[in-house]
Amino acid sequence: MIRNQMPAAQVPYQLDSGEGLRFSFGSHLATRIAVPEALGQPAAGTVLSGAKGAKFPVHRHARTHEAVYVLEGAVALTLAGQAFLLAPGDYVNIPPGTPHGYEFRDHRGKLLSWTFLGNAAEAYSRLGAPYAGHIYPESTASVDWSLLDASTDTELLDSTSFVDGPWSPKLTTAPQGPVPFVLAAGEGERMIAGDQLYTLLGNQTHSNGVFISLLTEGPAGMPIPRHQHEKVTELFHCLSGQMEMFAGSEFITLHPGDFLHVPPRAPHSFQLTKPDTRFLGFVTPGLFEPFFRYLCSPFDGYRYPLVPPPFRFDRVIQHLAELDLTLLERPGGPPPAAPHA
Amino acid sequence: MIRNQMPAAQVPYQLDSGEGLRFSFGSHLATRIAVPEALGQPAAGTVLSGAKGAKFPVHRHARTHEAVYVLEGAVALTLAGQAFLLAPGDYVNIPPGTPHGYEFRDHRGKLLSWTFLGNAAEAYSRLGAPYAGHIYPESTASVDWSLLDASTDTELLDSTSFVDGPWSPKLTTAPQGPVPFVLAAGEGERMIAGDQLYTLLGNQTHSNGVFISLLTEGPAGMPIPRHQHEKVTELFHCLSGQMEMFAGSEFITLHPGDFLHVPPRAPHSFQLTKPDTRFLGFVTPGLFEPFFRYLCSPFDGYRYPLVPPPFRFDRVIQHLAELDLTLLERPGGPPPAAPHA
Repeated sequence: MIRNQMPAAQVPYQLDSGEGLRFSFGSHLATRIAVPEALGQPAAGTVLSGAKGAKFPVHRHARTHEAVYVLEGAVALTLAGQAFLLAPGDYVNIPPGTPHGYEFRDHRGKLLSWTFLGNAAEAYSRLGAPYAGHIYPESTASVDWSLLDASTDTELLDSTSFVDGPWSPKLTTAPQGPVPFVLAAGEGERMIAGDQLYTLLGNQTHSNGVFISLLTEGPAGMPIPRHQHEKVTELFHCLSGQMEMFAGSEFITLHPGDFLHVPPRAPHSFQLTKPDTRFLGFVTPGLFEPFFRYLCSPFDGYRYPLVPPPFRFDRVIQHLAELDLTLLERPGGPPPAAPHA
Repeated sequence: MIRNQMPAAQVPYQLDSGEGLRFSFGSHLATRIAVPEALGQPAAGTVLSGAKGAKFPVHRHARTHEAVYVLEGAVALTLAGQAFLLAPGDYVNIPPGTPHGYEFRDHRGKLLSWTFLGNAAEAYSRLGAPYAGHIYPESTASVDWSLLDASTDTELLDSTSFVDGPWSPKLTTAPQGPVPFVLAAGEGERMIAGDQLYTLLGNQTHSNGVFISLLTEGPAGMPIPRHQHEKVTELFHCLSGQMEMFAGSEFITLHPGDFLHVPPRAPHSFQLTKPDTRFLGFVTPGLFEPFFRYLCSPFDGYRYPLVPPPFRFDRVIQHLAELDLTLLERPGGPPPAAPHA
């Protein structure tokens, strides 16, 4: 396992909380945790933080689809002409062409941004210089935003396009289709599988099938069966608790803030190992969404119940032929009906 | 080291994120992480969570001093007749006699409450039954608040005393003295010592010397010198990153959400071992505050700088005679001028 380094190849790697390729501009810090060379595709993951008042002006990407999950702090967001005050756990879908920009409103703002299709994440190295620290600099240096242009898939919009309130309500249910939206923390389409609750933040329709994003949470429990995918890349962010992963050829423990990249054809598995563990996953392409719909049942509640329903891995087994899924061991649940186990 | 159990004696113990003595009432969950028997003093630590809309009615404690740190979610607070919308990182000082109550406003509300002097934390076992789960139940059962009375140092106030907005601004600087206040996330009195930033949330004046509370954050660095106190109890909450503690007679690693109790006369030390590690400490009695003022210099910034100032442990050494501090090893900084090392 490659730890705290990003390989220039499509192999599993793990980054501790705070690690990555760091660039500062003004009082912003962009920590790039996944770059296209490592992912083997035009996608990128970045953790953005900045001082109170640090602002990324309103802009739009012609090709890049961006998704933002708020990790910490209060952040003012302009999205398609509306203003939102973001809090931890909020999720933002930003399809290509959507004007957006943000301002950190306290000293703790931290955003996780995933970009797909276009190269907008190159903006951070264009704007900034490599930085030795792991937190934003309290710098008063100005940023030359005019460095951003079509070569980083970023078109800056007029500075008057930042909407500074009143705050629009965040959604409790996401609309369907590739439209911009802000989903409030804890909301989303909820599904249950055994003792784990899955909350779909971004579904296939939201990105035309490019990716899905979902929260997984549950008590300390059993490992899921080891498996691998032919085309699907999985990007794991541990948010709370602790999880034991198997990836490639070894076990690795993730704690809050840690990131793990699992490329296609890498055997992997996870196990939640502390009470109330939660992780955020981005899965690309999005074609793996049906797996969760076979495994899970729709769920009206917001937290996994004390007494879990049966783990219906049998329903996955029944649909194995249509899924990009190769099981590498027998599931702990009902005996498989297919010869893959 | 005692792990994931609370001893009935004043010895070091560690609880993983989510562990503790759990009581449910309605859709609230109170996880008691420290009880008077374990602490050897009338103090208690509790993690409170609950479903959206779960409300703890307005009440006051005659003797108990309470301090609340917001861990997760959005929480409406009534404090001395004012309304606040709390967010993660906010800190609330609640001296005896102060009317207060709260309502969870999303599905993720989680508060850390420390109480001192009185036995108000007994309210949770009075109101609730022991609960097997580690997250709040999505229950519609009502709560019999009339169970609370002077025997749990809790006087319920009229239900009309809950103030549901408009939201009062949170402070960026705490007032002096034992007065109720809400300090916004990231704010507080900031001091720097070497590569670490200390932010005092509660100082001695806020509780008449009963306790202090402070955030410590910094990059991965060196361990502080191993030491012990005669009277001081330290209560460590790891919030982000990772720290290696020595406590009693062994090393222990804390991850976000983990708690460590260090009683008087237990040798201890800490080391930040991941980039941007942050922990919250409660220290009781508060008489240890001068230690931080000797060690640190006042700091106007909000984040520790890339190039740290000198670590002035020499100033602590000079005042060792007046501090409840016995050094058990030579500090890594300047050579000590006193014979304790």
